[in-house]
Amino acid sequence: MYFTSETSADGLVEREFTLGDVPGVLWTPSAGPGPLVLLGHGGGNHKKHPAMTGRAGLLVAAGFSAAVLDAPGHGDRPRSAEDDREVALMQEAMATGEPVGPIVERYNGDLAARAVPEWQAALDALQDEVPGPVGYWGINMGTAIGVPLIAAEPRIKAAALGQFWPSTLVDLAKQITIPIEFAMQWDDEHIPREGALALFDAFASPEKTLHANAGKHKQLPRFEAASAVRFFSRHLGTP
Amino acid sequence: MYFTSETSADGLVEREFTLGDVPGVLWTPSAGPGPLVLLGHGGGNHKKHPAMTGRAGLLVAAGFSAAVLDAPGHGDRPRSAEDDREVALMQEAMATGEPVGPIVERYNGDLAARAVPEWQAALDALQDEVPGPVGYWGINMGTAIGVPLIAAEPRIKAAALGQFWPSTLVDLAKQITIPIEFAMQWDDEHIPREGALALFDAFASPEKTLHANAGKHKQLPRFEAASAVRFFSRHLGTP
Repeated sequence: MYFTSETSADGLVEREFTLGDVPGVLWTPSAGPGPLVLLGHGGGNHKKHPAMTGRAGLLVAAGFSAAVLDAPGHGDRPRSAEDDREVALMQEAMATGEPVGPIVERYNGDLAARAVPEWQAALDALQDEVPGPVGYWGINMGTAIGVPLIAAEPRIKAAALGQFWPSTLVDLAKQITIPIEFAMQWDDEHIPREGALALFDAFASPEKTLHANAGKHKQLPRFEAASAVRFFSRHLGTP
Repeated sequence: MYFTSETSADGLVEREFTLGDVPGVLWTPSAGPGPLVLLGHGGGNHKKHPAMTGRAGLLVAAGFSAAVLDAPGHGDRPRSAEDDREVALMQEAMATGEPVGPIVERYNGDLAARAVPEWQAALDALQDEVPGPVGYWGINMGTAIGVPLIAAEPRIKAAALGQFWPSTLVDLAKQITIPIEFAMQWDDEHIPREGALALFDAFASPEKTLHANAGKHKQLPRFEAASAVRFFSRHLGTP
């Protein structure tokens, strides 16, 4: 892992890095690194999207460290011909009002197969900087990548997930026993309510909480981010 | 409303009162009353059960005032022959493993018909002490009484509810549009999962949140109380 930049402001140190050809960012409190939370960004977004920098800011303010990678085909990484094809299919489905779920599930499953080993290599390197228990926080595509990552990775001890279809993830969720906080939108126009409930139900975790809010797919309330930070404080502790 | 006692400790003033033959408690911050949250206690409990004093302590620490009444047939109030009969039926069902839901729904419906006008009279009097917006917080029997109270009472602007069967409450819930935070237990051995979800679904509130936690009926996590206080802070404000 090579650090390529370092900036510091308002009690937060931001370091960009590359690991092989995967770029990422590590945020730590100026006062010293607290427990690490891995952030998985959403589809079409990237490592420094406001949703990521916002969550990193909340985490660091609570004493945590946070790290994010650009997912395959996202951010500063090249898109393959397959990436281009799948993105075009998604955009076409959105434009015509066809269900986008089957395309997203397939494409994000492919992305997860590429992303999980990248995250595991990054975690090996990040643990030199930030030892101790690790959390994972990602919704939408962040959950499509997070569920197989958590199932494969015993170092992850708690996860905030949500807003994804069940079919490709249920069997993996049944293998997961760490504490889970799972967000869904009660009136999601893309993910059927029964599907979201089925994915939450599948986790074998003795401690799991579903937060279902009225509203459509993109209307997840801001206060759920603060809730996720409290969830990590309960399960990972803070310095 | 007659105040019958007043004690003060740790920034909290506790005043017991009677309104007609209904006894209650009003808690306010020593620094002066913040927005009022009405507390509905659970079946078989009473106005000074630890669940009530605990919630009152959290509310007052956050700047709110809190008030509770003994429900009909509970606490310091006499039980009628009907109360005795219904309680005996519930205990028998619990002992034999029969479903307790049909008995609780009928009995709590009767209690609510008696309790709602008592709460409305109490609110008239309490608003002289604590003017401004009002919240309601009650699970189990506190929801059986709370849903008809909220449907009847425009002064209540936000409510934390949960853990009750749908059949007697769904039609009233459809009339309710204030913000709701609703708790259920995912593995409740008394209230079927589909029934709890149906009651949450029935609220017409544009802002509503379901918190479903793994575990049985009595295993509602402690952190849900702090969550309810934050919910009231969002919707009622604090001084």
